Amino acid sequence: MSTTDGLTREIARRALAVRHADLPDDIRMLARQCVLDTLGAAIAGRDDSLTRILAEELAEQGGAPAAGIIGSALRLPTLSAALLNGTASHALDYDDVNLFMPGHPSVAVLPAVLALAEERGAGGAAVIAAFVAGYETACRVGKLLAPGHYDGLGFHATGTVGTFGAAAGCAHLLGLDLEKTVHALGIAATQAAGLKSMFGTMCKPLHAGRAAYNGLLAARLAARGFTARPDSLECAQGFARTHSPDFNPSAALDDPAGGWHIRHNLFKYHAACYLTHAGIEAARTLREAHHVAPDAIAAITLRVDKATDRVCNIAEPRTGLEAKFSLRLTTAMALAGRDTGRLDAYNETTATDPTLVALRDRVVVDFQSGWPTTRAEVDIRLADQTTLRAVHDSGVPAADIPEQGRRLEEKFLGLVTPVLGDSRAPALVDAIAGMEDAPSLSAISTLWVPEGTARQAAE
Amino acid sequence: MSTTDGLTREIARRALAVRHADLPDDIRMLARQCVLDTLGAAIAGRDDSLTRILAEELAEQGGAPAAGIIGSALRLPTLSAALLNGTASHALDYDDVNLFMPGHPSVAVLPAVLALAEERGAGGAAVIAAFVAGYETACRVGKLLAPGHYDGLGFHATGTVGTFGAAAGCAHLLGLDLEKTVHALGIAATQAAGLKSMFGTMCKPLHAGRAAYNGLLAARLAARGFTARPDSLECAQGFARTHSPDFNPSAALDDPAGGWHIRHNLFKYHAACYLTHAGIEAARTLREAHHVAPDAIAAITLRVDKATDRVCNIAEPRTGLEAKFSLRLTTAMALAGRDTGRLDAYNETTATDPTLVALRDRVVVDFQSGWPTTRAEVDIRLADQTTLRAVHDSGVPAADIPEQGRRLEEKFLGLVTPVLGDSRAPALVDAIAGMEDAPSLSAISTLWVPEGTARQAAE
Repeated sequence: MSTTDGLTREIARRALAVRHADLPDDIRMLARQCVLDTLGAAIAGRDDSLTRILAEELAEQGGAPAAGIIGSALRLPTLSAALLNGTASHALDYDDVNLFMPGHPSVAVLPAVLALAEERGAGGAAVIAAFVAGYETACRVGKLLAPGHYDGLGFHATGTVGTFGAAAGCAHLLGLDLEKTVHALGIAATQAAGLKSMFGTMCKPLHAGRAAYNGLLAARLAARGFTARPDSLECAQGFARTHSPDFNPSAALDDPAGGWHIRHNLFKYHAACYLTHAGIEAARTLREAHHVAPDAIAAITLRVDKATDRVCNIAEPRTGLEAKFSLRLTTAMALAGRDTGRLDAYNETTATDPTLVALRDRVVVDFQSGWPTTRAEVDIRLADQTTLRAVHDSGVPAADIPEQGRRLEEKFLGLVTPVLGDSRAPALVDAIAGMEDAPSLSAISTLWVPEGTARQAAE
Repeated sequence: MSTTDGLTREIARRALAVRHADLPDDIRMLARQCVLDTLGAAIAGRDDSLTRILAEELAEQGGAPAAGIIGSALRLPTLSAALLNGTASHALDYDDVNLFMPGHPSVAVLPAVLALAEERGAGGAAVIAAFVAGYETACRVGKLLAPGHYDGLGFHATGTVGTFGAAAGCAHLLGLDLEKTVHALGIAATQAAGLKSMFGTMCKPLHAGRAAYNGLLAARLAARGFTARPDSLECAQGFARTHSPDFNPSAALDDPAGGWHIRHNLFKYHAACYLTHAGIEAARTLREAHHVAPDAIAAITLRVDKATDRVCNIAEPRTGLEAKFSLRLTTAMALAGRDTGRLDAYNETTATDPTLVALRDRVVVDFQSGWPTTRAEVDIRLADQTTLRAVHDSGVPAADIPEQGRRLEEKFLGLVTPVLGDSRAPALVDAIAGMEDAPSLSAISTLWVPEGTARQAAE
């Protein structure tokens, strides 16, 4: 086929071609890791004020208790559950990332697929296949528009591109035919939204929820016979032309190294913006390898790509949320030995802590051109003029996937045990590990309810 | 103030400054006319297949029966009601237009305001003020981005810009303060979507529903303390820069002639493509002023801008849909005295009627350059060589607003009587005429239920 004609159709065809029985073992393991990590992020994010505001609003709207709210006894209609769970999963910005998208694929796709699967009584294997189909679709659409969609214009791909992923995942789970899946992508295209300029506000997590909701609605309407045009990505004044200066159909259809985009999934181990992670890791290395005390440091140079400037370079953060988007402060926190993996590491006290502020003020950000945005080089000059350097690239996926799973379980238990308790948190880890053999999600959605709370509908 | 700094705030401030007690009489009358016309369009559009699909989906989601579905006994949560009523109002593309926006302001703003007012028990005067606030906001945001947002890039302003209008209208009705209204506009900005390339599909009406839903959600979340950034329109990578090559803050803040954008509202009286309307009106004038009988006409010249050629110049239409996009046939229908306002006026029988076809074949379309697309000049030459001319510009609002009201009532009754019956349709006209004195919308939402159907919640 030509790379432009039928592009939307070809992306839909590839989504529908995903079959659980044919998925390689490591792909299934990675998908389960995404489920574990997304649920952990949602459970940890359930009490964030933005999540609570949205939960109150949607509980007031009420409706059929078709799907569970992660980390809670509340049950809501599928669309509301997708919106709320998507938002909660991204509330702390502690969920996974894919640089092809570029954005947060799991929080856009999984909440939509999970809510739909609960409503329809689908089993865990169907969820894993649908999730992978949606994940791969989000990355393909992301590559179609890269780099100008996110980097240049300033759309938040988690919100925009994520909508296509959610629609494709839900179309897969619903068993839609190719024609209806193409329409679902069209209905998704004309709803997809999200601005990068909202980073640092409550709207950033909302984008993930809106992607899940809009993609789920698109698939549900398409299933009922609602139509869009079949070439929504590539047509004149279609999604691509209105949302990016770039249009790369061959990139969209090229398989990545290893054949699957999910093999390039990146998990977060620091509770701050992803583009601060390389600086944190490099600073940690310096501190740990050389036992550098903060007050011995005369000067710090952080070299990162200039694209990070517009994402996470709040020079003098005042709040916990701003702290997560501050290259200078997060680097200072790592040099001072703060545990950047803890949710409570980022707050007003941290942001204004005199020791950290003094260290932060010694960080000079030296922007580079053409670097991966995930790369950082940290130089520190000590009072005795010694200079030390460390380099890290947080864009390189882990090579050892089972080992990654162990690190993710540790992160999950750290986030989830305080909410679910000592018995349910590890039981939920086990239920997710075995989900592909389960005929429904009921074990998972029972275990994510904190002990001692009864299930409840909205009213 | 500078025209850029604080632009979002200034637009919010102006929305909140609208006070019912200060509205000029003609503005209130125009607003009531918009209510009448939007409800008529929604009632006529309630059985369109796209409306029915969405209604089935939202009824299945269920929820608190807080707001009525126009033209039906169904009651749904406010967000679902805004989504469904907005979509239904635009299903037939027979609702009002504002060229500043440019798009369909009422179907984006009013369904959100109405659903919210029903839920909160607000009265008709509050609805009129909130609607005007939202309407003016939509036009201001539209002027900020014109012409490149709609014309150049291809965003559907009804969906995108309409979201800001709905958010401002709902913020007004909720009595939000300036700060929260600014956040509501930000939450709206990051959800706003809609592609012009979806014209001709079920997605076009959906855009109006999504604008109403997204704007309502934005205001409701802002009321609960959800935050966005306060400069969402004008900031770097904000809504304007991502969605238009044009950025005209002074245009956004300039008052139009007459001081109010709603004074430039245009109603549709013919159930055909808007660009056929001027030709229809000019032909009607000739028929009515000169009592010209169709068989006395030897030749007809229709002068319109050449841009209409690509939109609605099907020379020999065969179907009802083609008839709506035929300059020649619609002009012939008007000259023959057919009622071009009826939904069922356009069908296969009309398109192939020998009398109309004979008249149609005497119409010569003479394309002009640089005319407004809404202007038409019709010359007819009679058998006795008399030549008559009439000119109409359907982009010029009516000068006689009470007379416009009488014409809208006639349109409304033609659309609505078949659905609501002979007593409820005129009673609904009266209820809307008197709404500003009513302490709630209950009279209106009772009367829009077809006779003989009982109120029902979703489940």
